[in-house]
Amino acid sequence: MTSETASKDCLGWAARDPSGVLSPYSFNRRAVGSDDVSITITHCGVCYADVIWTRNKHGDSKYPLVPGHEIVGIVKEVGHNVSRFKVGDHVGVGTYVNSCRDCEYCNDGLEVHCARSVYTFNAIDADGTITKGGYSSYIVVHERYCYKIANDYPLALAAPLLCAGITVYTPMMRHKMNQPGKSLGVIGLGGLGHMAVKFGKAFGLNVTVLSTSTSKKEEALSLLGADKFVVSSDLEQMKALGKSLDFIIDTASGDHPFDAYMSLLKVAGVYVLVGFPSKVKFSPASLNIGAKTVSGSVTGGTKDTQEMLEYCAAHKIYPQIETIPIENVNEALERLIKRDVKYRFVIDIQNSLK
Amino acid sequence: MTSETASKDCLGWAARDPSGVLSPYSFNRRAVGSDDVSITITHCGVCYADVIWTRNKHGDSKYPLVPGHEIVGIVKEVGHNVSRFKVGDHVGVGTYVNSCRDCEYCNDGLEVHCARSVYTFNAIDADGTITKGGYSSYIVVHERYCYKIANDYPLALAAPLLCAGITVYTPMMRHKMNQPGKSLGVIGLGGLGHMAVKFGKAFGLNVTVLSTSTSKKEEALSLLGADKFVVSSDLEQMKALGKSLDFIIDTASGDHPFDAYMSLLKVAGVYVLVGFPSKVKFSPASLNIGAKTVSGSVTGGTKDTQEMLEYCAAHKIYPQIETIPIENVNEALERLIKRDVKYRFVIDIQNSLK
Repeated sequence: MTSETASKDCLGWAARDPSGVLSPYSFNRRAVGSDDVSITITHCGVCYADVIWTRNKHGDSKYPLVPGHEIVGIVKEVGHNVSRFKVGDHVGVGTYVNSCRDCEYCNDGLEVHCARSVYTFNAIDADGTITKGGYSSYIVVHERYCYKIANDYPLALAAPLLCAGITVYTPMMRHKMNQPGKSLGVIGLGGLGHMAVKFGKAFGLNVTVLSTSTSKKEEALSLLGADKFVVSSDLEQMKALGKSLDFIIDTASGDHPFDAYMSLLKVAGVYVLVGFPSKVKFSPASLNIGAKTVSGSVTGGTKDTQEMLEYCAAHKIYPQIETIPIENVNEALERLIKRDVKYRFVIDIQNSLK
Repeated sequence: MTSETASKDCLGWAARDPSGVLSPYSFNRRAVGSDDVSITITHCGVCYADVIWTRNKHGDSKYPLVPGHEIVGIVKEVGHNVSRFKVGDHVGVGTYVNSCRDCEYCNDGLEVHCARSVYTFNAIDADGTITKGGYSSYIVVHERYCYKIANDYPLALAAPLLCAGITVYTPMMRHKMNQPGKSLGVIGLGGLGHMAVKFGKAFGLNVTVLSTSTSKKEEALSLLGADKFVVSSDLEQMKALGKSLDFIIDTASGDHPFDAYMSLLKVAGVYVLVGFPSKVKFSPASLNIGAKTVSGSVTGGTKDTQEMLEYCAAHKIYPQIETIPIENVNEALERLIKRDVKYRFVIDIQNSLK
């Protein structure tokens, strides 16, 4: 059964202009279509993408803009064709909510690469409407872009998996980083980096965190379980680590030199970039000598996302989060810009957005 | 049996200073050791490396310097432990003549990555002597670093395979470019690029040559067999080629932008760099969006080199060469700098070095 939605029954917080300041905003969601799932949102993670688009950093923001693409919640209604979900199920929605469903990428569960994929917020959906994200009370999404979350996996902790988690999991699996005994360097210890450390340890890797300061050293080693912590400005430490890593995953979005990090890779080592510095620049010798590889990635397809959620549940991999009420979201975005978060903000939508 | 070598019986041409001007120079080779092969050199290819080191571009040239690392010839003597070669065999020697023979790379036939590999010229060998290359009448090399060349493969044509050929063959095989029906872009049409086109066609790929000018268009299509020729400054042509290539092999050593070329790759496309521009610089979006890969490479191991030589013989893949007498080598190096060669100079050592 489909239902007609009453007017502006979805509560949200939206940015109205490039100041990026968020404030309460009510709007409509589409009626639940035959393949749709309607989800009462309980939590939404805060991703740096939320800063970028609320502040129009890419010049394509469409206001009012409701951000949020690390969405978890509970199914409240399903369309009559929906088979994978039922009312009461715990579900997640990630960075996209639509795609063509017919191209080679969609057919392989790699919808993130579909030319017609539709981002979860600030994108124009197939019906012409502008998508609105998870800083809101509920969302209506085609079931293909919804993921099952195990009942015993805390919903608040599941939120960061939908972007931060899958963004590092996808390239780690693609580049076969799940080989016990291999070595991994993780550059940057934010939302993405701390998940890379957790996946790395679950995969049996020897994990070295590479950071610009010692401030996160103790936590990296004791809380996240990293094997080693190296300050990248310490030339002696860096030299000692030379040619020792099978893999590097670079989650830093700030500008940084690449040659020094690439020198840490063994022959045929793989350097995965998931951040967006202003440019990538290195000497060809850093790449050619030792036949190294630099590869990029963005989030992941529906198949990998569901697999990752199940892997986290099975291996009890939980992000470290700081839960905030929606009223504190503007402060949280400011703190995120200053990297003052360990390691992901999650908005307690259910208890604060009323 | 080992033999004692008479004094200065090896004729060669050497550069004496950073002017890079080559002139006749006689010197000694070591006596033929128990595992050595002594080779009468018939031909030697002219590689851009010969320009770099004769002119001390890297600041580490040791004069007098005898260049040349695309060496072919005929076995004239073998040490008593040598089993793979006998007098009269056609053989080749490439870019290195020694390695530790005990590390993980040597054990895998990837000696090029051995930390103790010794380049064929201007390197300090294990015995402390400085290696001298193929612009000379004969050479003594441990049999491990000698390759069999089929009797019916013209020796002059085999020379460029030892550096130009293996430099493109190795990454093409490593990145699985031997899948018929896939598409390959070749940037630069010099010694390396023209071999990449030939391998690409032998592998069943759809090959597009990307060049800065139309001057080589006809030859690329008719002589080398490329399927398409695109001038990289033609924005319309480049746009039409967007997201269409599975692979790119970039053989250009001059500086060039990377983003425009990377935009030609399909999702998960692979861009292989074998040239040495002054830097590699691109936008992270060019890499991350579409999960692309940039990978580097230098020549190849002994296993790949022997395999490549056999592949070329079996598939009748022959480089395009311009044969010159040794007297013309200084002019040839000047022309190489101006890229005025189609597509590799090969010195006819046997008939001109006396």
